[in-house]
Amino acid sequence: MTDFRSVAAATGQPHGPAFAVHGPADVAQACAAAAAAFDAYRATSREARAAFLERIAEEILAIGDDLIEAAMRESGLPRARLEGERGRTVGQLRLFADVVRKGAWQQLRIDPALPDRQPLPRPDLRLRMISLGPVAVFGASNFPLAFSTAGGDTASALAAGCPVVVKGHPAHPQTGELVAAAIARAVAACGLPEGVFGHLVGPSNELGAALVTDPRIAAVGFTGSRAGGLALAKLAQARDVPIPVYAEMSSINPVLLLPEALAARGEALGTAFVGSLTMGAGQFCTNPGLVLAIEGEGLDTFIASATAAVGQAAAQTMLTPGISAAYASGVAALEGSAGVETLAKGQPGEGTQGGAALFRTTAAAFLADKALGHEVFGAASVVVACKDEAELVGVLRSLEGQLTATLHMDAADEALAARLLPVLEVKAGRILANGWPTGVEVCHAMVHGGPFPATSDPRTTSVGSLAIDRFLRPVSYQNIAADVLPPELRDDARGDGAPRLIDGVLTL
Amino acid sequence: MTDFRSVAAATGQPHGPAFAVHGPADVAQACAAAAAAFDAYRATSREARAAFLERIAEEILAIGDDLIEAAMRESGLPRARLEGERGRTVGQLRLFADVVRKGAWQQLRIDPALPDRQPLPRPDLRLRMISLGPVAVFGASNFPLAFSTAGGDTASALAAGCPVVVKGHPAHPQTGELVAAAIARAVAACGLPEGVFGHLVGPSNELGAALVTDPRIAAVGFTGSRAGGLALAKLAQARDVPIPVYAEMSSINPVLLLPEALAARGEALGTAFVGSLTMGAGQFCTNPGLVLAIEGEGLDTFIASATAAVGQAAAQTMLTPGISAAYASGVAALEGSAGVETLAKGQPGEGTQGGAALFRTTAAAFLADKALGHEVFGAASVVVACKDEAELVGVLRSLEGQLTATLHMDAADEALAARLLPVLEVKAGRILANGWPTGVEVCHAMVHGGPFPATSDPRTTSVGSLAIDRFLRPVSYQNIAADVLPPELRDDARGDGAPRLIDGVLTL
Repeated sequence: MTDFRSVAAATGQPHGPAFAVHGPADVAQACAAAAAAFDAYRATSREARAAFLERIAEEILAIGDDLIEAAMRESGLPRARLEGERGRTVGQLRLFADVVRKGAWQQLRIDPALPDRQPLPRPDLRLRMISLGPVAVFGASNFPLAFSTAGGDTASALAAGCPVVVKGHPAHPQTGELVAAAIARAVAACGLPEGVFGHLVGPSNELGAALVTDPRIAAVGFTGSRAGGLALAKLAQARDVPIPVYAEMSSINPVLLLPEALAARGEALGTAFVGSLTMGAGQFCTNPGLVLAIEGEGLDTFIASATAAVGQAAAQTMLTPGISAAYASGVAALEGSAGVETLAKGQPGEGTQGGAALFRTTAAAFLADKALGHEVFGAASVVVACKDEAELVGVLRSLEGQLTATLHMDAADEALAARLLPVLEVKAGRILANGWPTGVEVCHAMVHGGPFPATSDPRTTSVGSLAIDRFLRPVSYQNIAADVLPPELRDDARGDGAPRLIDGVLTL
Repeated sequence: MTDFRSVAAATGQPHGPAFAVHGPADVAQACAAAAAAFDAYRATSREARAAFLERIAEEILAIGDDLIEAAMRESGLPRARLEGERGRTVGQLRLFADVVRKGAWQQLRIDPALPDRQPLPRPDLRLRMISLGPVAVFGASNFPLAFSTAGGDTASALAAGCPVVVKGHPAHPQTGELVAAAIARAVAACGLPEGVFGHLVGPSNELGAALVTDPRIAAVGFTGSRAGGLALAKLAQARDVPIPVYAEMSSINPVLLLPEALAARGEALGTAFVGSLTMGAGQFCTNPGLVLAIEGEGLDTFIASATAAVGQAAAQTMLTPGISAAYASGVAALEGSAGVETLAKGQPGEGTQGGAALFRTTAAAFLADKALGHEVFGAASVVVACKDEAELVGVLRSLEGQLTATLHMDAADEALAARLLPVLEVKAGRILANGWPTGVEVCHAMVHGGPFPATSDPRTTSVGSLAIDRFLRPVSYQNIAADVLPPELRDDARGDGAPRLIDGVLTL
């Protein structure tokens, strides 16, 4: 294939001009440029790097409505959602600008020399975090702005001083090109080397494989399917020099309805649950694909309410024909599973539209069939009715790693919630109460990550300011003369706003 | 094999009673106990966990001279070195106790709710680091105390709230048993569950493989050979749930002699260099196995001085017959390499003794033969005479990742050092000036790590307080009621001494 075209989500039909497909030579060129830009870019001051991130935000806003229209056409997502997502993308870049300016990410540490220490003197030791190297980013189809070309992975890697080479998602090439051009304008406006940002376009897995195996790439950010993430991780591990892959892959996001909350507001919970389930056609990493509760009247009320709401839910255009087909086959598999009852299916749709689907099963049936715990990407969810707390805990313990776990609870449920918390902590990156997992706040205390297979690396998050840590590594400087030391580690840099750990004492 | 015996390093002969060799059932039992202890141990207060680490230190000291004598017999290392190493081991445990008490490792973050924010309110979000899970530790042969049973990996994992299962190094089973018993006494004295610490004994790779592939193990700490580290990493990646392996493996630790320093004190540098090279029979991860300099009179003086010192160096008992044999074969390979001149060999030894060896080559020959850049574990080093700065930089860039890079420099070398620093930063975890790499300070600003193959994960260190981060992962709590929140994240915990990032502002 030598070129490919944008496909409108609603029709499945190609439209617009053809894109030249990048090949191995383009990968090599982009990686060489990124490597050549690395030293200059990582040496930029905190202020210069922050200003660059802010300039990217401005350039994205300056594209105007063309960006929203391209993303609507390519993703099938509605205007309001994409305008909100643009705000999130820009806010994320500005958050990282603020983080870069404050400087805590450098983790500066100074252990002064102790020349008189016995039996041996202590040398002067200073530590800072430096940039890991050029980063390959694979955007997600379901957030064409906030998790794609200028999304969280790109923003956090650039904040860390790493050049970025993006493999644009083939589901939204026009959107990706518009954003890539905005970043390139920011690079030029800030006087940075061109290689700070590279953009590769093409539908093939070979392109991604060439990028991950290029020896100049030092880390990979990925949001997508479990199969895709595992394939990249395998390639990265098989390199002469293995590199980290941060893949956000698969999660069914259990929602636990605790007894008192269920008794008090089962009906309202049912309606609100379906609102979260069907938002964006269920195409969220944090979509609530599993509901756990102890059987009884409260659960019956919840199920009746949710069943009615799903039955009325309109079908929605899905992101791509492939995602739509995979969703249909996932729903069909659930319908055919032993011990699984189909409670409701949403309004029938056309073409690439997907309708909601709600299922019910027992803890015993769920535990007997591992496939029931696998993600079906879209607005499908399974309610597991448990006999008692022990059975509920048994189901929880059987789950794979998750991005989120949600508790609906009242004050009288607190003792139970406190017993469940240690179980949830080892399963999920984020535990939330009395809300729905589909909102992911971009802030300092967010974790969008979790044990395998939610991500390939539970020590990290791909959303929020902590995401910058993924692209840094520590270097120690021993008895290095002041004029040779990196500026932020010199004695005269104290008071530059960055916290320092001096002889073990945190100093602002 | 059903049992094995301790081998005296000096004679290669077994002595003392036979040890029962642990098998798969023992691995499963130790891992089950660790998993059962996990929730209780990770819930211990900072004070309780710190007191436990301090108690381990006391119990190790209480063993008294039996420990030193066992380690001397098994490792062949001299008394003064092992007494120093015991001090280091105990100091390391106390350092982590201090770190645990101060609480910065929890990385507490609080983003308070913004109920009136438009277009959507912000929920209350709080983040803390939690323990990763039970950790498998493989001790090193070359530090029977400080990098073994109660060494840096064990201390940092216990500090992080992770139970530890050690596979004792078969080169020092008696030493290992003494230390393991001391830890077990500390566990009992502190009222902790027995599974907080497990100890497995046996010489086989199968034992280690069973440990790394046990589904209850969440991370691995390893110090040893490149082949060993890579084998464990491969096993860990092939698990149903892959886990991180922190392997410290292979480094030749380039020493750069800059022109002015060389001109001023080439002779003294040569003598001091051989002191570092031959310390502990060269059996240090940070042993200076490569010397780089620009050719000229200064280098000639250095080489003459180092050649003389190596010629006079006494042979020393090596840690094991296997290490001694591998060293002899590494030296023989260097002697037979094209373009490599043997400058000097140390005094001949007997049995498992190894003698120092010094070689000289050109940049061109070094670049032509990758094997010259591989670690020879022991007191062998290669001097590479470069024609000019460009050739020296070319050799540096060709190197694999390193634990350390050393500069010998005078004030007049500072401009050159500043040009070299960015090259060294991407190659090594620690850069030091006017000292020798073989001393590794245990402190806050130490990095004992580096790019592959120095370690399997350049984002980490295995020495110093930053090592605790390897065994933690972030969890976010959204709108969780105060009574259910972990204590340190409640509003009333402010002022407990741990720093908090509140709405992005670091607060002490």
